[in-house]
Amino acid sequence: MDGQCNSQCAGFDGEGDYLLPVDRLREFSAKVFMHFNISEVDARQATDVLIRSDLRGIDSHGIARLHTYYDILASGRINPRPNIRIIREKSSAATIDGDNGLGLVIGPKANEIAMDKAERYGAAWVVVRNSNHFGIAGYYPLKALERDLIGWAMTNASKLVAPLWSSERMIGTNPIAIAFPGYEEPPIVIDMATSAACFGKIEMARRKGQRVPKGWIVDKDGCSTTNPQEMIDGGALLPLGSERETGGHKGYALASMVDILCGVLSGADWGPFAPPFALRVADPTERVGKGIGHCFGAMQIDAFIDENDFKREIDSWVRMFRKSKPSPGTFGPLIPGDPERAAEARRSKWGIPIIKSVADDLVDISKRTGIPLEIGCKL
Amino acid sequence: MDGQCNSQCAGFDGEGDYLLPVDRLREFSAKVFMHFNISEVDARQATDVLIRSDLRGIDSHGIARLHTYYDILASGRINPRPNIRIIREKSSAATIDGDNGLGLVIGPKANEIAMDKAERYGAAWVVVRNSNHFGIAGYYPLKALERDLIGWAMTNASKLVAPLWSSERMIGTNPIAIAFPGYEEPPIVIDMATSAACFGKIEMARRKGQRVPKGWIVDKDGCSTTNPQEMIDGGALLPLGSERETGGHKGYALASMVDILCGVLSGADWGPFAPPFALRVADPTERVGKGIGHCFGAMQIDAFIDENDFKREIDSWVRMFRKSKPSPGTFGPLIPGDPERAAEARRSKWGIPIIKSVADDLVDISKRTGIPLEIGCKL
Repeated sequence: MDGQCNSQCAGFDGEGDYLLPVDRLREFSAKVFMHFNISEVDARQATDVLIRSDLRGIDSHGIARLHTYYDILASGRINPRPNIRIIREKSSAATIDGDNGLGLVIGPKANEIAMDKAERYGAAWVVVRNSNHFGIAGYYPLKALERDLIGWAMTNASKLVAPLWSSERMIGTNPIAIAFPGYEEPPIVIDMATSAACFGKIEMARRKGQRVPKGWIVDKDGCSTTNPQEMIDGGALLPLGSERETGGHKGYALASMVDILCGVLSGADWGPFAPPFALRVADPTERVGKGIGHCFGAMQIDAFIDENDFKREIDSWVRMFRKSKPSPGTFGPLIPGDPERAAEARRSKWGIPIIKSVADDLVDISKRTGIPLEIGCKL
Repeated sequence: MDGQCNSQCAGFDGEGDYLLPVDRLREFSAKVFMHFNISEVDARQATDVLIRSDLRGIDSHGIARLHTYYDILASGRINPRPNIRIIREKSSAATIDGDNGLGLVIGPKANEIAMDKAERYGAAWVVVRNSNHFGIAGYYPLKALERDLIGWAMTNASKLVAPLWSSERMIGTNPIAIAFPGYEEPPIVIDMATSAACFGKIEMARRKGQRVPKGWIVDKDGCSTTNPQEMIDGGALLPLGSERETGGHKGYALASMVDILCGVLSGADWGPFAPPFALRVADPTERVGKGIGHCFGAMQIDAFIDENDFKREIDSWVRMFRKSKPSPGTFGPLIPGDPERAAEARRSKWGIPIIKSVADDLVDISKRTGIPLEIGCKL
């Protein structure tokens, strides 16, 4: 973990303790997956989802999770050679059983099927059961953009959120992602959890000994609190909208929609039964379906409107919203996807910043597997 | 407006000044639409959307709008005999031009097309341009339930909401609706604006001289306020999530998604260009497309999973969420659609409560058109 700091550090944005070249992380991650008898194609696919998350600045869902994947794969809980198959199908619809493989491999395959169907029939939905965590939801509509499609991705996840007027964790942070291509302007990329805040922010506040804003969490009795420890000790996240009067019922409704489309419609484990990502969290004692569920949608723009007309109109939309009058103390509205695109431009050039605890995790994996990794200088 | 109060008043819930039998309102509304050369079939369809809103307790979108429809139709701004046609089509996709007809007529036709396609191909999306206000979004997935489909409806609407970090009205309250059928349990019906609160609540608070909760509105400079008058005087609604730290960027992203799917993908007027519903609101000076846009989706459950298995699992979902531990001072979580279903049961039996100003509007229409209407006793 020592060495000369290279010139890349000059462009570093201070988000981590080390800065690793993208390709180095990519090679390491792929080899770690292959270490567990995952095929090279699948290992590279899984890695692509993780690294894309790091590139887009969503550190919580990227290489920081590799040690958890290592643990899960080492425990045998995930099938490294799944038989991913369509179990029900119609022109514009399909249900996939992921055979308990990596969500990072099942998700991209299911997304491909949705896109193929959309190109043929104009639009399609593909739901998935018996999967595991699929990375950032935004990865999938970004792939759809490469084919000039509008892509949707949703997933359910293990319980962290209390429905409005409940004091229990019943549902996941269940994200919704969708993207729209522009012509000269960059695409509009939406990727959002349906909770008011994500769990990572609660964890971070706890570590720093800080309070969190009102409206993020409740304690184990369902009472509003700003103390992150009280959420962690059996409390829950609040849905987007927080309380009743500010629309908490709407965030709960959106999380329910995602849970039903991903979980119930596919035959996966829904609501409080969705299995957790990490080994240290206890599995629900009961199962009502199979594993985590996802839902991928694709729409062929040209089936609805001339594709170039659409893209040019997206350009106009983006420009119109950008020039809207800023609210006090701000530079004006962002376009969904702006922060992630800025991170991707920066990190593609300079590398991925890694905090010390993640670097330690990677070194630990390296030691256990014998796969070499040079972390480089501490910044 | 006088007469004997009939026995129905006994079951009245105190929400209005008069209580009108559903069939009487239905006949009156249909005749008012027919007065403007709208066909009987279309007039009854338009009425069905309005009355369903009243039945479900969403008074703001029901018969209370009939006078505005009267005004718009009398002004010639809406085409009473539109040639509603598919202008682009693929198996699971279509774009409809509504020929500037009533959204209450165009919406149900487009929704039918989406449902027909879903039954044939498994899933479909239909987008609509050149339409007008289509009533409550929830009407459309309720129709899909009658055919055991999962239905989606979205619409854009005239600008009322400021994007996060903007101080201008740029986008509508753009609702999302979706519904899922149960087996023994009633369906889960989601119908939500993507703003923190609807404009009706701001208007009502203003009339009552009350403040509104923080997080609902900003004034004309984009500063947070609780004075409803300041929103009305050139301020704006906030998106679901309100401020940045409580997720206002997510509500803005959802409103954008709806605007793009309904407005841009169909070739309608998007964002700040979406034409207003009422005549008293000035039209945007520029047009970028044609009229209001909608988006209808349908998914055939059986294309993804056995339909009865799905419905039974929805029953389990509903029961599981109902029995979750209540938060302090509540009776526990509701299931999306509970309040509207309770209203529908009550109002189907007892009639539609009408406040005095709406009764006055109806009497005014009756006088102008010569279509008789007995309002009955004041409660």
